[in-house]
Amino acid sequence: MNDYWKEFPTIQQNLQDTCSLIEQQVKIRNKEIETALIDLTHSGGKLLRPAFFFLFSQMGDSSKQDQEQLIKIAASLEILHMATLIHDDIIDDSTLRRGIVTIQSKYGKDVAVYTGDLLFTEFFQLLSETMNGSSFLKTNANAMKRLLLGELDQMHTRYKKDMSVSDYLRSVNGKTAELFSLSCLEGAHFGHASKQVQRLARRIGRNIGIAFQVYDDILDYTADTTTLKKPVLEDLAQGVYTLPLILAIKQAPERFQPYLDKKEKITAEETLAVAELVLELGGIDEAKYFALKVTQKALTDIDTLPESVGKRQLEKLTELLLSRSF
Amino acid sequence: MNDYWKEFPTIQQNLQDTCSLIEQQVKIRNKEIETALIDLTHSGGKLLRPAFFFLFSQMGDSSKQDQEQLIKIAASLEILHMATLIHDDIIDDSTLRRGIVTIQSKYGKDVAVYTGDLLFTEFFQLLSETMNGSSFLKTNANAMKRLLLGELDQMHTRYKKDMSVSDYLRSVNGKTAELFSLSCLEGAHFGHASKQVQRLARRIGRNIGIAFQVYDDILDYTADTTTLKKPVLEDLAQGVYTLPLILAIKQAPERFQPYLDKKEKITAEETLAVAELVLELGGIDEAKYFALKVTQKALTDIDTLPESVGKRQLEKLTELLLSRSF
Repeated sequence: MNDYWKEFPTIQQNLQDTCSLIEQQVKIRNKEIETALIDLTHSGGKLLRPAFFFLFSQMGDSSKQDQEQLIKIAASLEILHMATLIHDDIIDDSTLRRGIVTIQSKYGKDVAVYTGDLLFTEFFQLLSETMNGSSFLKTNANAMKRLLLGELDQMHTRYKKDMSVSDYLRSVNGKTAELFSLSCLEGAHFGHASKQVQRLARRIGRNIGIAFQVYDDILDYTADTTTLKKPVLEDLAQGVYTLPLILAIKQAPERFQPYLDKKEKITAEETLAVAELVLELGGIDEAKYFALKVTQKALTDIDTLPESVGKRQLEKLTELLLSRSF
Repeated sequence: MNDYWKEFPTIQQNLQDTCSLIEQQVKIRNKEIETALIDLTHSGGKLLRPAFFFLFSQMGDSSKQDQEQLIKIAASLEILHMATLIHDDIIDDSTLRRGIVTIQSKYGKDVAVYTGDLLFTEFFQLLSETMNGSSFLKTNANAMKRLLLGELDQMHTRYKKDMSVSDYLRSVNGKTAELFSLSCLEGAHFGHASKQVQRLARRIGRNIGIAFQVYDDILDYTADTTTLKKPVLEDLAQGVYTLPLILAIKQAPERFQPYLDKKEKITAEETLAVAELVLELGGIDEAKYFALKVTQKALTDIDTLPESVGKRQLEKLTELLLSRSF
């Protein structure tokens, strides 16, 4: 686990326990896959979803909480996230993830397929241990489906020149915001917070998820490999047209057309030229403004939550996510 | 659905309903994947697992049965099976499955990864609708994990010259027998059969699954593409050493060594030479004898089941599986 959480002392221990549980959970008789999974656990995943989960659980009634259950649910959220990461890297043919080589590029796609599958199983096992009989079992199944459909939407709209903001948001809502929303909602629910807090949690999580993804997509245009630890303009090169580009195209579609018509044949230099166009036409600024508005919605909702340590830490974390270097 | 089930009138309608439900379940907004999945559903999968499920459910108390629940559970078994098939085809780089081109060779590995993932989700959704609160939720999670570990074992023991019968059986127990066992057990359980029938169902399913896999592996050595509808000696070429080969190697390891040392560089002609060696050294006959013994165990158990139409059809199906052309 990384140092990110030192400033959030109330959840630091919880996140440590979640990390340990994940490591225990991925112990299997195939040592190659076990090593791959432990690598991934150690590679500095931010545990953002479990963090939001615990912050919301702290707004509940601690006398009713089952600590073991909470740790397991937090782990299930991170494990589902890890599973989709691994399979995404197969689709994207990514060589780097979180600054280390991906499972598929280190061990091959065979191992990557099964490793992701195994994590889906661990996810399912953790749920069968923690929420058997709860309506949240179905909530999780539905969330997992929306998550995958979001990934499929993204795959399906590759190289789509007339990609609209609503196409983009549909995919982001599924592939990213769904799991943030679920994390916050489950934290509030299994932490025994009020129905009102649960309702807010769901909406806050969704807006944080959308803002998080938009910022991530902005970083693809602005960061370099040293700060973000991943190849830049990767999405663009692979035909994944995100908000900065979509907003810039609206300003002058004819200037992008010659580049985008090349689809996967676009060169590294041309990709750079597109990125410069995006900056020049205000795509980055507009996307930042969009993310700011969405974050503001989340902060406004957070403001209405009952006063608590969790609330202040939640505000801090949300603002911190916003101040990532770009 | 194919004509295979005409001779099993008591379950034919159930299987038809299961098929329809699967088709409904795979309707999604991504038309490419939807088509791929409907292709797969239509391509003559034998629905063996749902069939065993329904035969065992018929040994229960029909007055207590929930028909919609049974259809959904039967569908969940086939869907889990389909998901693993799709991901296996990525690992194997298979071009054919059930005589039609695989999803990965027709639509690419990207679509195949997500299509399999989506089926895991459908599986999970069906379980959340049918057994939320039942101990069978965990039984399913565990079965899914054993299934995957069986696949991993197979991958892990590729090109293993000293592959033992017990290595082989460990993999088969996971990748094939686990789901047959679960299908029979769930049929008996959710059909409200007695505890004794449930115990037998689990064991009968396991033995049928093992025998089924051994026969399938024999077919890899004896069938040709016209009868089996898939490339022959595929396993051997990919380093998956199955029972006929393992048993033949025991007779004269030195005759196999020069071939197996070549690993993935083995030519088509050399593969054929190995197959002839396997036949010459009695590997096929010994494997058949092994499968016969295991089938006999299943039939002996079936014989102790209470008299019923289901019991006679179960006997018939088990024997039919045995008489596949080779």
